[in-house]
Amino acid sequence: PHQHRFQTECRLDNLNAQEPSERIESEAGFTEYWDQNDDQFQCAGVALLRHTIQRRGLLLPSYSNAPRLFYVVQGMYICLFSRILYISISKGIQGAVLPGCPNTYQSPLQFGNRRTQQRIEDSHQKLRPIREGDILAVPEGVAQWIYNDGENQLVLVGFYDTLNEENQLDQNPRDFYLAGNPQEQSEQRSQRSRGQSRRGEQDNTGNNVFGGFDRRSLVESLNIREDLVDKIQSQREDQRGNIVNVQDDLQLIAPGREDDEEREDRQQEGRRENGIEETFCTQRLKYNADDPQLADFYNPRAGRVTTLNSYVFPILERLQLSVVRGFLHKNALVGPYYNLNSNSVIYGLRGNAKVQVVDDNGDNVYDGQLREGQALVVPQNYVVLKRAENEGFEWVSIKTNDNAITNQLAGRLSVIQALPVDVLQNAFNIDENDAFQLKNNRNEAGVFSPSESQSQRRRD
Amino acid sequence: PHQHRFQTECRLDNLNAQEPSERIESEAGFTEYWDQNDDQFQCAGVALLRHTIQRRGLLLPSYSNAPRLFYVVQGMYICLFSRILYISISKGIQGAVLPGCPNTYQSPLQFGNRRTQQRIEDSHQKLRPIREGDILAVPEGVAQWIYNDGENQLVLVGFYDTLNEENQLDQNPRDFYLAGNPQEQSEQRSQRSRGQSRRGEQDNTGNNVFGGFDRRSLVESLNIREDLVDKIQSQREDQRGNIVNVQDDLQLIAPGREDDEEREDRQQEGRRENGIEETFCTQRLKYNADDPQLADFYNPRAGRVTTLNSYVFPILERLQLSVVRGFLHKNALVGPYYNLNSNSVIYGLRGNAKVQVVDDNGDNVYDGQLREGQALVVPQNYVVLKRAENEGFEWVSIKTNDNAITNQLAGRLSVIQALPVDVLQNAFNIDENDAFQLKNNRNEAGVFSPSESQSQRRRD
Amino acid sequence: PHQHRFQTECRLDNLNAQEPSERIESEAGFTEYWDQNDDQFQCAGVALLRHTIQRRGLLLPSYSNAPRLFYVVQGMYICLFSRILYISISKGIQGAVLPGCPNTYQSPLQFGNRRTQQRIEDSHQKLRPIREGDILAVPEGVAQWIYNDGENQLVLVGFYDTLNEENQLDQNPRDFYLAGNPQEQSEQRSQRSRGQSRRGEQDNTGNNVFGGFDRRSLVESLNIREDLVDKIQSQREDQRGNIVNVQDDLQLIAPGREDDEEREDRQQEGRRENGIEETFCTQRLKYNADDPQLADFYNPRAGRVTTLNSYVFPILERLQLSVVRGFLHKNALVGPYYNLNSNSVIYGLRGNAKVQVVDDNGDNVYDGQLREGQALVVPQNYVVLKRAENEGFEWVSIKTNDNAITNQLAGRLSVIQALPVDVLQNAFNIDENDAFQLKNNRNEAGVFSPSESQSQRRRD
Repeated sequence: PHQHRFQTECRLDNLNAQEPSERIESEAGFTEYWDQNDDQFQCAGVALLRHTIQRRGLLLPSYSNAPRLFYVVQGMYICLFSRILYISISKGIQGAVLPGCPNTYQSPLQFGNRRTQQRIEDSHQKLRPIREGDILAVPEGVAQWIYNDGENQLVLVGFYDTLNEENQLDQNPRDFYLAGNPQEQSEQRSQRSRGQSRRGEQDNTGNNVFGGFDRRSLVESLNIREDLVDKIQSQREDQRGNIVNVQDDLQLIAPGREDDEEREDRQQEGRRENGIEETFCTQRLKYNADDPQLADFYNPRAGRVTTLNSYVFPILERLQLSVVRGFLHKNALVGPYYNLNSNSVIYGLRGNAKVQVVDDNGDNVYDGQLREGQALVVPQNYVVLKRAENEGFEWVSIKTNDNAITNQLAGRLSVIQALPVDVLQNAFNIDENDAFQLKNNRNEAGVFSPSESQSQRRRD
Repeated sequence: PHQHRFQTECRLDNLNAQEPSERIESEAGFTEYWDQNDDQFQCAGVALLRHTIQRRGLLLPSYSNAPRLFYVVQGMYICLFSRILYISISKGIQGAVLPGCPNTYQSPLQFGNRRTQQRIEDSHQKLRPIREGDILAVPEGVAQWIYNDGENQLVLVGFYDTLNEENQLDQNPRDFYLAGNPQEQSEQRSQRSRGQSRRGEQDNTGNNVFGGFDRRSLVESLNIREDLVDKIQSQREDQRGNIVNVQDDLQLIAPGREDDEEREDRQQEGRRENGIEETFCTQRLKYNADDPQLADFYNPRAGRVTTLNSYVFPILERLQLSVVRGFLHKNALVGPYYNLNSNSVIYGLRGNAKVQVVDDNGDNVYDGQLREGQALVVPQNYVVLKRAENEGFEWVSIKTNDNAITNQLAGRLSVIQALPVDVLQNAFNIDENDAFQLKNNRNEAGVFSPSESQSQRRRD
Repeated sequence: PHQHRFQTECRLDNLNAQEPSERIESEAGFTEYWDQNDDQFQCAGVALLRHTIQRRGLLLPSYSNAPRLFYVVQGMYICLFSRILYISISKGIQGAVLPGCPNTYQSPLQFGNRRTQQRIEDSHQKLRPIREGDILAVPEGVAQWIYNDGENQLVLVGFYDTLNEENQLDQNPRDFYLAGNPQEQSEQRSQRSRGQSRRGEQDNTGNNVFGGFDRRSLVESLNIREDLVDKIQSQREDQRGNIVNVQDDLQLIAPGREDDEEREDRQQEGRRENGIEETFCTQRLKYNADDPQLADFYNPRAGRVTTLNSYVFPILERLQLSVVRGFLHKNALVGPYYNLNSNSVIYGLRGNAKVQVVDDNGDNVYDGQLREGQALVVPQNYVVLKRAENEGFEWVSIKTNDNAITNQLAGRLSVIQALPVDVLQNAFNIDENDAFQLKNNRNEAGVFSPSESQSQRRRD
């Protein structure tokens, strides 16, 4: 692929945990945007948004110039008399259209009776039932829609990898909607003020990509009636936005949810042998990151951390991204560590943590809370330390490398443990005994329990 | 390879079909340059030029910091009493020097008799006979020359992939000539005004790369006489430019033209087994894109489209480019579609089309003609629709990805056909019958005939 | 990996041989920095520094956002009565910590007797004895320390590949020190003036990455005493800098030096079969470039040139760099040639050369000396010619492509020899005999002897 070119000097001497800066309402939900012009997001090359889709809401099909990852956030928890009640399961259906791939799914038609008897089924590309903890990988230019068929709202956090080499435009993420009249962000609107005044015949059409063609061309190309073209193009008056109400529940039949992951795995295994095109069309676009059995670091006294990279979830090789999902108990710690070969965005899913980040000069560039719903950029090689507060802490991190590697500065498997005692001693100007303690006192790896007593210290 | 860094925000709310902005005359032809500083070309990372080489003209050997693709344009057509007369065949010979590869061709010497009898043959690297419709792939830094040994002028359109990761300078394309005194573009001249005043001893030498060395160094290095060095360095007075007249027809013997492609195929097949270096030195640099048998989309009522990507033409993997060659009958259509993972430059070869392009906001950013000899940039993900006018339309597109993928928004294999009817219905707020029509009324793929009657509509 | 984005237009109409612009003293040596904001280094995407480590000096462990290559410079030569006396051998020990890899080396403890008898050995990652001519490859984010256990000073030239795609910050190289209180470059200090004023609790801690955390967090994470944390964080008053004195000679045991290279080769060969992780952890990070047997071009009358690319030294594939090591006798020549697909930095190791560089307009952009200790950037495709002066010339070049290719413009294997005589004749407007001389008079390849007499000319 092509190369990129974005000016930036990363001036990151003061990070901050960020919340969305704009909210755009739709008929059946709303979308919140983080400030994509913020220095931290610009340097990391990531843009963030969050869709909240009401029951029976449909997020209209769209594609983007940047590869996207979506994380399906858990349903709501309620604390009652100090007990956490888990009150809802979020679920939905996702469709992504891979170019040139066959329609392998059949759905019955809702109003089949209204017309002739022949039309009883409809074929389309694969549908994916989605649930809490799912990561959805959507390559650049691939159209995706999502339908909330659950009983509660469905919340998705979306990460756009704007500096990805597959994005050949500029660092601005752009959503191209195939239908409706989605509202723009205010910033895009202002950038575009010149462009809008240019609209001639299309002056009253919607913001979807059909809206910009003249009626006759679409009549010819789609071979449909003029009044249907008018509907396809949508109208400026269409106030439904990018998340619309579905009148009657969609009669989409997707395979059972429970053993979905396993089945996909087996299918993929089998299909792999059939060659390139088959693999492209059947590649897995979804992976559940919450499953405790997938944990890479696990410490019953502290928590667990799961990493999805391209070895585990091959589509990530194309997206050049990794995902980390973490759970920390109260007062447990992660770090200090740094990302060897990637930037990172940490998104708080539940609870609260105290986070510190340090730069190459040993300066503290962040020392504060990271709460549910907030995002914090951690630049490559900057050192970070998290300690969960009273409610514990859960997070998901997106890293801008398909094989993102972290380097620990404490505990087993850390850089400190890999250095000779003699080197530690002279580097830190300490005596041998202290060098030993520094190297060996924390004998856990990756996720640290809060109160390892001094008596438990071990030296080898 | 290394990374790139070019500042740009792609402000593409108003595209236009462009013609060359400068023409530089040479002894045996002329070269036309498109404005490389134009926003559209800058954003797409492509620069364009067009060489017109007269009969017995030699385009001097040069290399560039950007990978290059050349398309050999057809000879002239003349319309007489509404019939198209095809009046000339364009042909020529190309040489490209691959570094470190052996001289595998022998040519007889023109003036062999003037000297001793022994010198009757000359060895050099491979020669390639070229003809209309050939794509020539020239990697960065590889020197190429072209000789017109046909009866008519030879026209080549050149595309420079300036944002390619193999270009480690900046986004300016630079031609390094090995010989002669090629004139610079006026823009380069002005950029360089400071540099020229620095010229000391070389003040009167030509613009080729030998011109900048002192005479003694070249005498020593090349081990030749001083007066020959003076000739090699050329002079400011040399007015032949970059395309020079050949005094007597070059006695270059290249293998027969007719079955050249097939033979190359077979040779390459056989040589592939011999390892890395063998493959590098014998890789194919030429591919004819006009052959109707290569069509990927073919519709006798509408036209055809052929795609060359790195699966078909492996050198494109190195250049990270794809080529599309299209033919449309009168009133036939292509699109709406978008390039999933690449920018694109469409160059009109013959006839005329009405083209519309739409951005992510549903705004029309181009609505106009695209004629023979014009170039139009279509940015990644922007949606485009072409309809051939009365004379039909032929074009060649260069795409900035070695496996460029397009996504159709109409017809079979389109995104629309891959979506469930229920989703279309709710997304566009139309009834089921209309959703069916939208999905199924255009049952052709890729290239659409102009007047598919309503009676031919089919639903599955 | 991710993409980069650096604005730059390469304005390279006037190169110059550069020496360090800043020197920072440490307790046991000093570090010199070249001006990283210089246009030439910015365009080439390379930053340079030079460490001079005194006997028993330890360069503190640090990692960087850019991949790094270090070359171990020879010991001192002294000219006495016109004879060169070689007076010292430079040697040392290097440790690099690969993330997640096991501690495979055991070292005895210096003060083992001071504590219990059990602690007699210490395990850590691999140690590498280093000597003159070694290239050390250090990927982004990998921590490295170096100890001078020789009798003389140890000098290393470091090249930072700041435009490498693995660097996801900006073009500024940043060293993250794990220990001590290394002084910053004055430029970084001024950039940071704002940041430093922000320091609160850490106001008195050192510049290493532990310095920016609060004491309590490190106590918890490392599970050590508060006063030990204070030592780890170092203090502003610590004046030892980044190269510190080792009190008693480090008792590190590294395998024998003599056959180290060969053994490594054999080991690597054997380990290759054990799978991915094994390969990552056991990859070779060191290669001696001075060995005459490795020469790729060798001419007893002129000198020799050795190229290390990723075929020879596989870690270079990850770093996307190549190294060239050259030796020229008095008055011998290299070039004219150009780098096909990379930028290059030439660092003078010994002696003196006259160097000329020419751009795409045939303008001379450098015509001067290149001496021991100076660095010269040669941009991609620019043509360069070197002639050794009286003492001969030795150099090491770093090229920004893991398979950097050069194209010769003189001698065997040159572009000129690959062109047909007929083409040369018409391109240069010379007669056939002159074309023959141009093509064949210099019959050496790569490295040219100074006085090849006219009588030795051969034609085929």
